[in-house]
Amino acid sequence: MKAYSLFLAMMAASATSAFGADKPNALAATPNLNNDVKQVVFGELWERKELNKRDRSLVTVTALVAQGQLLELPFQFTLALENGVKPQELAGAVTHIAYYSGISAAAEAEAVLARVFQEQGVELSSLALAQAKPVADAAAAKAQREVVLSMVGDVSPGLAHFSNTALNGDLWLRDDLTPRDRSLVTISALITQGNVEQIPVHVGKGIGNGLKPSEVGEVITQLAFYAGWPRAFSAAAAVKAMNLTD
Amino acid sequence: MKAYSLFLAMMAASATSAFGADKPNALAATPNLNNDVKQVVFGELWERKELNKRDRSLVTVTALVAQGQLLELPFQFTLALENGVKPQELAGAVTHIAYYSGISAAAEAEAVLARVFQEQGVELSSLALAQAKPVADAAAAKAQREVVLSMVGDVSPGLAHFSNTALNGDLWLRDDLTPRDRSLVTISALITQGNVEQIPVHVGKGIGNGLKPSEVGEVITQLAFYAGWPRAFSAAAAVKAMNLTD
Amino acid sequence: MKAYSLFLAMMAASATSAFGADKPNALAATPNLNNDVKQVVFGELWERKELNKRDRSLVTVTALVAQGQLLELPFQFTLALENGVKPQELAGAVTHIAYYSGISAAAEAEAVLARVFQEQGVELSSLALAQAKPVADAAAAKAQREVVLSMVGDVSPGLAHFSNTALNGDLWLRDDLTPRDRSLVTISALITQGNVEQIPVHVGKGIGNGLKPSEVGEVITQLAFYAGWPRAFSAAAAVKAMNLTD
Repeated sequence: MKAYSLFLAMMAASATSAFGADKPNALAATPNLNNDVKQVVFGELWERKELNKRDRSLVTVTALVAQGQLLELPFQFTLALENGVKPQELAGAVTHIAYYSGISAAAEAEAVLARVFQEQGVELSSLALAQAKPVADAAAAKAQREVVLSMVGDVSPGLAHFSNTALNGDLWLRDDLTPRDRSLVTISALITQGNVEQIPVHVGKGIGNGLKPSEVGEVITQLAFYAGWPRAFSAAAAVKAMNLTD
Repeated sequence: MKAYSLFLAMMAASATSAFGADKPNALAATPNLNNDVKQVVFGELWERKELNKRDRSLVTVTALVAQGQLLELPFQFTLALENGVKPQELAGAVTHIAYYSGISAAAEAEAVLARVFQEQGVELSSLALAQAKPVADAAAAKAQREVVLSMVGDVSPGLAHFSNTALNGDLWLRDDLTPRDRSLVTISALITQGNVEQIPVHVGKGIGNGLKPSEVGEVITQLAFYAGWPRAFSAAAAVKAMNLTD
Repeated sequence: MKAYSLFLAMMAASATSAFGADKPNALAATPNLNNDVKQVVFGELWERKELNKRDRSLVTVTALVAQGQLLELPFQFTLALENGVKPQELAGAVTHIAYYSGISAAAEAEAVLARVFQEQGVELSSLALAQAKPVADAAAAKAQREVVLSMVGDVSPGLAHFSNTALNGDLWLRDDLTPRDRSLVTISALITQGNVEQIPVHVGKGIGNGLKPSEVGEVITQLAFYAGWPRAFSAAAAVKAMNLTD
């Protein structure tokens, strides 16, 4: 346990020094990048009104967890709390990401989150187990299960089973994150990972859950910086083909 | 060397505490994820009969190496040995992954594997160099070389050269892993990385090497959890289009 | 700060022992991989004349930064300096990669680069801020801005804005890296990440910036080893469809 704490202390220390955009350029190996992060990313991107800072934090944290960027995570988890993401929501987001980016990406991030919670005075014992709410529209849920079965039931019965139980029958119904936030996190994971095929379905679902098309466009803008321009352009093309308007 | 050992000790320590699904929820930053790993992943997924635990370990290790998840690797390498993957096979799998996920992903994982071997009493000096067996079907091998040349010989002569020598003319012939296991590892790497274009060719080859279509379906199920749902759905669509039956 | 230095010392120590291809096989957990790296990668690939070692280093560093392979980075950053990539160019490359692979991947790599610069006696204070040169062809720049607006201006106005300002109106004009090197880095990031859709545009731009089609083919060869065979084959198919000749 001592070694483990030391590892996390290191990550926290590296986060303090390497991110946050306040390192003097004379100490930076990449002074232009430092400048860009300061002026363009924090000076301009995060201040844009098309998406609030809380949502930007959910999007950014998703990108970092999906990409396994553990060194910057302490900084961004802390910023997320500061931007109004509640501890329970942050825990819910990491759990949600587990299903869209793999449980190991989430488990590694969980170790960082535990440390950030400790530093910020969040008691782990205060984090209640989220509960799945009853399905609101039973007919729609049944239709969704049938779509899953017809899509992958023959080729991968296990995938169909867990999609209809653990994923759609439990995770998406849990009360620690709103459906809108789940869509925000899911869409961010898809864009970050280049899962272009699934973007239209989940953007459509997100609109149904209360996301505005203009917010989706700004999620893409945020991820241009945090997942790279190519992922953003591929996502923009997929969303453009949907012809949405606010 | 001391610092290096320390780094590995940290990874091992973090693995013990963060993975394995036995951390009390009161100590978890993501209690639902802990619960899901315990009940759904280890309680249900790993117990399914559609794929044995040894194969599940090969699939899971491949996903972690391909995704660079070094913190969970000590736990999964150890579990793989426990599930009957032999040390020589584990070494062969990491080497195989090097060609499908990049040599640096494999080299970073090798550092973790060396530590796990030490902890489990596997002597590194006992790991013999695998040898390439003679080609069984010379005509088929010649045909394969010609396909490679016609596909990429003009645009990237170097890629064609190394495909026909290092990859198909050496790696795939080595005696430390069966062709079936090589297909299992290759297919797992492709699904994990979202290399959808190459899935049909390698699933076809895997069937020829003894994998059953139902096993391929369960590889997809396992990877839904370890590489995320979107990769699993894209893979399922690619395999479904092949119309395979056991 | 002490913990941070320790973390970097560990990475450096692990790099020395795990990469560089000179570890005796008796100490390797994957003796065949060690052999392949020694004989095929360093003995053959890096010696091929189709691409010089300086360019191979830019390509390889890009792959490692894009994939977040921080443990091998100290070795490859050092090799890049040895192969003639100037410190200012290496800083410029990492900054460029930030836009194509996400700023966090670059920020994590920056921490490693700072350490390598220190070890190699490169003064951080000697790294000047690169400056954007005036646009050479104003009409072409205007046309490019209009293409961006027509592609993504409606669906993501923010993405269009930052593409036309921070990316094309600043980064690509900076004097710390030639346009040819920027194309080399961009193409390498695209291939590594599997951004197949964007490969034709950037290979076309790269040819305009002085890259030869045969060099592009050898970039693909280099990345077969450093990003894996599937990425190389997908890239080769995309470039083949362009029908280029030297």
